[in-house]
Amino acid sequence: MITVLSGGTGGAKFIQGLAQVVPPENLSIIVNTGDDLTWWGLHVSPDLDSVMYGLAGILSPERGWGIDGETFACLETARRLGLPAWFQLGDRDLALHLARTEMLRSGRKLDQATAEIAQRHGIRAAILPMSNDRVETRVLTDGGELNFQEYFVREHYRPEPLGVRFVGAEDAQPAPGVLRAIAEAEAILIAPSNPITSVGPILSVPGIREAIRQTQAPIAAVSPIVSDAAVSGPAAALMRCAGLDVSCRGVASAYRDFLNVLIADDRDRNSDLALNLNIPVHFCDTMMTSDEVKTELARETLSALKNFYYKEVVAS
Amino acid sequence: MITVLSGGTGGAKFIQGLAQVVPPENLSIIVNTGDDLTWWGLHVSPDLDSVMYGLAGILSPERGWGIDGETFACLETARRLGLPAWFQLGDRDLALHLARTEMLRSGRKLDQATAEIAQRHGIRAAILPMSNDRVETRVLTDGGELNFQEYFVREHYRPEPLGVRFVGAEDAQPAPGVLRAIAEAEAILIAPSNPITSVGPILSVPGIREAIRQTQAPIAAVSPIVSDAAVSGPAAALMRCAGLDVSCRGVASAYRDFLNVLIADDRDRNSDLALNLNIPVHFCDTMMTSDEVKTELARETLSALKNFYYKEVVAS
Repeated sequence: MITVLSGGTGGAKFIQGLAQVVPPENLSIIVNTGDDLTWWGLHVSPDLDSVMYGLAGILSPERGWGIDGETFACLETARRLGLPAWFQLGDRDLALHLARTEMLRSGRKLDQATAEIAQRHGIRAAILPMSNDRVETRVLTDGGELNFQEYFVREHYRPEPLGVRFVGAEDAQPAPGVLRAIAEAEAILIAPSNPITSVGPILSVPGIREAIRQTQAPIAAVSPIVSDAAVSGPAAALMRCAGLDVSCRGVASAYRDFLNVLIADDRDRNSDLALNLNIPVHFCDTMMTSDEVKTELARETLSALKNFYYKEVVAS
Repeated sequence: MITVLSGGTGGAKFIQGLAQVVPPENLSIIVNTGDDLTWWGLHVSPDLDSVMYGLAGILSPERGWGIDGETFACLETARRLGLPAWFQLGDRDLALHLARTEMLRSGRKLDQATAEIAQRHGIRAAILPMSNDRVETRVLTDGGELNFQEYFVREHYRPEPLGVRFVGAEDAQPAPGVLRAIAEAEAILIAPSNPITSVGPILSVPGIREAIRQTQAPIAAVSPIVSDAAVSGPAAALMRCAGLDVSCRGVASAYRDFLNVLIADDRDRNSDLALNLNIPVHFCDTMMTSDEVKTELARETLSALKNFYYKEVVAS
C-alpha cells in the first residue's frame, strides 16, 4: 500500500504516472480540500477533481485542470446572466459538482461522495479528502485577505502574499480512512504540489502530521520547485512568504520533520540550491511533460525509497 | 396594456406572435409555475423559461422548450455519474437555473429573479410568475399520484389521469403585479395552453380568478384543442378527467365564468364540436407552424376582441 499526499495540477499528473507502476487498488491518495469553494451554490473541490480526472484518464493535459475536450456553454451563458464567471466550470465538470452537491445535501459526507463519484469513474485507487470538515485556505496579500481561489484564479496570484492561514483547521478531523492510510502505508509520497497551500492544508489537520511523523514507512517528497522557480502556480511566492528558500532545499525544509528522501530535478544536480540538504536527494527528470516522464518519475521515486527497506509492490 | 395567462409550449409560441403586433412593453404575461420543480438542487420553472426564451428569440422551434442549438454535455455526464436524467437540462439552460437558484438563495423572490433574468435577456414585456409561493401540480393517475413533470416528462403522460390538484394553492398569494396586471389590462388573453394544468394552476391562486371575473376588459381564449385532440401534450386526457369535452367547446366551458370570445381553429368551423357554444367564436388558423402564423393568430385574436370595445393598442 502506498499513500500519497497531493494537491491538484502537479499532484494529479504525478498520480497518473504512479497508477502506471503501482496497481491502483494499492494506492491511497489524501487530497487537499483547502481550495474547496461554494460556486454558484455548488460544492467544488478543485484538487479532488483534478486527481479524479487524472486517474480516470480524462484530465485535460493542456490546462492541467478540468476535462479534456471540455465545452463551456453554460459558463458563457452564466456570464451573460450576470453570474460571476472567473472560476471556470466546464459543462461536463459541472455535472460532477451537481452530483457531489446533491450527495452532500442528502446527508452524505465528502469522503462518501468522493468514493461514490470515483467508483462511477471506474477508479480503483482510494481518493480521500483530507477532512470532511470545511477548511478554507486564505491568503493575506498586500491587496487584503483572499480566499485561495480568489488569489489563485481570480487575481492570477499577482498580489504579493504576506501569509497563509487555514480557517477551520483547528477544529477539523481527518476524514475516515486518512489516518489508517498513513499508518498502514508501506511508503508515503508527497506529490510535487505546493508545500504551502496544497500539502500545507493537509498537514494542518490535527493528527495528520503526527501520524506521518510516527509511521515506520519511508517518506519521499517530489520537489515542485526546479532551480529557483515553481513548475507551475504560485508556490515560489508562497514559500518565500513562509520563510522557505524557493528551491528544492526549501521543499525539504517544509517537510524536515518527517522526510527521508527528496526527489529533485536533474537540472538541480549541480546547483548551489541543492546544497546543504541534510537528507538524501535523488535526482531525476521531474518535469512531467509526457506520460513517459510521469511514469518514469513514479518509478524513480519508488526506487529511491528502496534504500529505506521499501517493500516491493511495484508492478512487474 | 394586454395581459396574457400562459403555460409553456403553446403559450410561448403565442406570445412570440403577440410581441410582433403589440409593443412588448405593453405586455404582461402571467405564467404558470405549478410545473416548477427542484432538479439537481436547482429551481427549474419550465413555463417561465419557455416564455422567456420565446420572447428572447432563442426558444428551440423544433422542441418547443429549451434553447435553440442547445448542447447536453452536462446532462450526459450527469447520467453517467448516477444523477437522474429524465428531465433534460441543456448546458445553456442550466445557467438560467443556476442563476435563478442563486438569486432565490440570496433572498430574492421568484418575481424578482424572473424580472432580473428577463432584463438580462433584453426582454421588455413583464413576465410574472403566478405566485411567489410554491404551488405544485400533482396528477392522480391509475399508476399513483405523480408530480406534473413526472407525469408529463418522465412517464410521457401514458398513465391515465384521474384527477389533478394544486398543492399549496390555497395558501398561495398572487405574485406582486399579477392582480394589477389583470385590473389594469385593456384586454386579457388566455394563451392556447392546457386549461387544466397550465391555466388551471394560475386560476387556482386565490384572487386571480376573481380579478379576471371582475375586470371590465374583454377576455379571449385561444383553444389549444383542434377538432378532438390537443395540438400538443396531455391536454385531452386531462380535460376528459376534469369532465370537460375534448373540443374547443370544452375549452370555452373551462373559462365560462369570464370568457367573452373563443378563438378556435379554422378546421373546427363546420364541426359539431364547435356547436352549442353560447359565446362568440372567432375561427382562424391556430396551428402555429411558422412565425407568420403566430403573428397572424395574435392579430386575429386582438381583432376578435375589437367587438368588445377593445382599445386599439396594436402596433401600426
